[in-house]
Amino acid sequence: MSQPLVLDGLKVAEDIKSKLQARVSSLKEEGVTPCLATVLVGDDSSSATYVRMKGNACEKLGIQSKRIHLPSDTTTEELIQCIEELNQDPLVDGILLQHPVPSHIDERAAFEAISIDKDVDGVTSWGFGQLAFGFGKYPCCTPAAIMAILDYYNLPIEGKHAVVVGRSPILGKPVSIMLLNRNATVTTCHSRTQNLSDLVKQADIVVAAVGKPNFIQGDWMKEGAVVLDAGYNEGNIGDVDYEACFEKASAITPVPGGVGPVTISMLLKHTVDSAELRANQ
Amino acid sequence: MSQPLVLDGLKVAEDIKSKLQARVSSLKEEGVTPCLATVLVGDDSSSATYVRMKGNACEKLGIQSKRIHLPSDTTTEELIQCIEELNQDPLVDGILLQHPVPSHIDERAAFEAISIDKDVDGVTSWGFGQLAFGFGKYPCCTPAAIMAILDYYNLPIEGKHAVVVGRSPILGKPVSIMLLNRNATVTTCHSRTQNLSDLVKQADIVVAAVGKPNFIQGDWMKEGAVVLDAGYNEGNIGDVDYEACFEKASAITPVPGGVGPVTISMLLKHTVDSAELRANQ
Repeated sequence: MSQPLVLDGLKVAEDIKSKLQARVSSLKEEGVTPCLATVLVGDDSSSATYVRMKGNACEKLGIQSKRIHLPSDTTTEELIQCIEELNQDPLVDGILLQHPVPSHIDERAAFEAISIDKDVDGVTSWGFGQLAFGFGKYPCCTPAAIMAILDYYNLPIEGKHAVVVGRSPILGKPVSIMLLNRNATVTTCHSRTQNLSDLVKQADIVVAAVGKPNFIQGDWMKEGAVVLDAGYNEGNIGDVDYEACFEKASAITPVPGGVGPVTISMLLKHTVDSAELRANQ
Repeated sequence: MSQPLVLDGLKVAEDIKSKLQARVSSLKEEGVTPCLATVLVGDDSSSATYVRMKGNACEKLGIQSKRIHLPSDTTTEELIQCIEELNQDPLVDGILLQHPVPSHIDERAAFEAISIDKDVDGVTSWGFGQLAFGFGKYPCCTPAAIMAILDYYNLPIEGKHAVVVGRSPILGKPVSIMLLNRNATVTTCHSRTQNLSDLVKQADIVVAAVGKPNFIQGDWMKEGAVVLDAGYNEGNIGDVDYEACFEKASAITPVPGGVGPVTISMLLKHTVDSAELRANQ
């Protein structure tokens, strides 16, 4: 079989960002500087890296990055208090709470405290519900990135059988709903799924969102499947055994350089969307 | 093959209601009468019948039924105003807006106006999001009824492959999420699904929620499947070809007398749940 199309996330991200550039410029002409507040709790080094990458990506595009770093002994109440202040701040368009927070904090309660109008990372239950019912403003960024990649490469979704491996609130569940709303038939699999490989073998579109390095095997793939790897494990390794799946797929995202960069650009897009709503108030 | 277990919704409903009876009595001893407000808009005769059935079921159990009937020329704004008054009324525990409303009304906007604390019918996007993330208070009643039937008969869910035919906000989507949260592997199918019969043939659990009489065929069934028919079409006909599926299923809900009566009892249960929260305030 011919080689698959390698879905270049850097190219998709550049395309999204170049369109945002003009929107940021015209917002600034109106006196509105889009602003993303990032909240990092504690000293986890990879979380710190992620937050820094997001903040830097904002600034490169002219979006203000308001970086809040709370100590690791922050309580749930203190974190919620901080988020509520950001909710009230008229100059903040979006709030990103970096996952994971230290384990003594009720992370879900903190996520839920984010105002739906500023939930540009798409983490609240209300945001998920609105997304599911077809009128969500800010879908969760990684699922939105997966959809953006499919759309950039004009890969058909309607009528296709999509198999999503994973069911987390910020990845498996929202990407399942987004594919369903685009008229795919969707099977959501997880750790309790029996005969996982048989299910994946039926998929026209495979989304790997399981968080286990090289978990999805090449011999699970139907010839010609489209493979989207949202995994990002230590050592830049995805959830998909890339070499093996490359042999079967018609299109595949690499790791790194696949879903990851597009995820950040979706966060920027949602922040600009929110700033435009502020400008039009 | 031996005859399937007929899943008797009337029996399940009686079991739920008998447990509610004691809870209603003790609430009344505390001076709290649970109250469900039903809102009917216009003169559709089957909607009027449904609302009356729900109101009567409330009263039979000692739950107050506050029945509001608005004229068919009610505007979206007027309907939302009515719902907001019910949201504010401290003696109303739950609000049911009977679907469908006349077509000139923005039904989704009206549903969304219901306070999440009184959304005992489980129709708001926020309620759906909380349900999806595992902390919903009042799941949508028909999906909750399906789960209650499975549980009443101790039918296993974890690890099973459930195929849901339908993706509406009040049936297909929430039942898919509830089955997923109970560790089923879930495939959600709909009008754009290709090879529907091949997918249904793989199902250990089939949920029919498509609104087409006798749509699901007997020869689509795997031997031993559990079949739940949430359809209710004109002439008391379900979405499942009952006679044909009866031959294959290990358990099946009849229509009528299956999912329908349990749905109403879930509405009563959620109203009592809400009244208990009021009593404990």
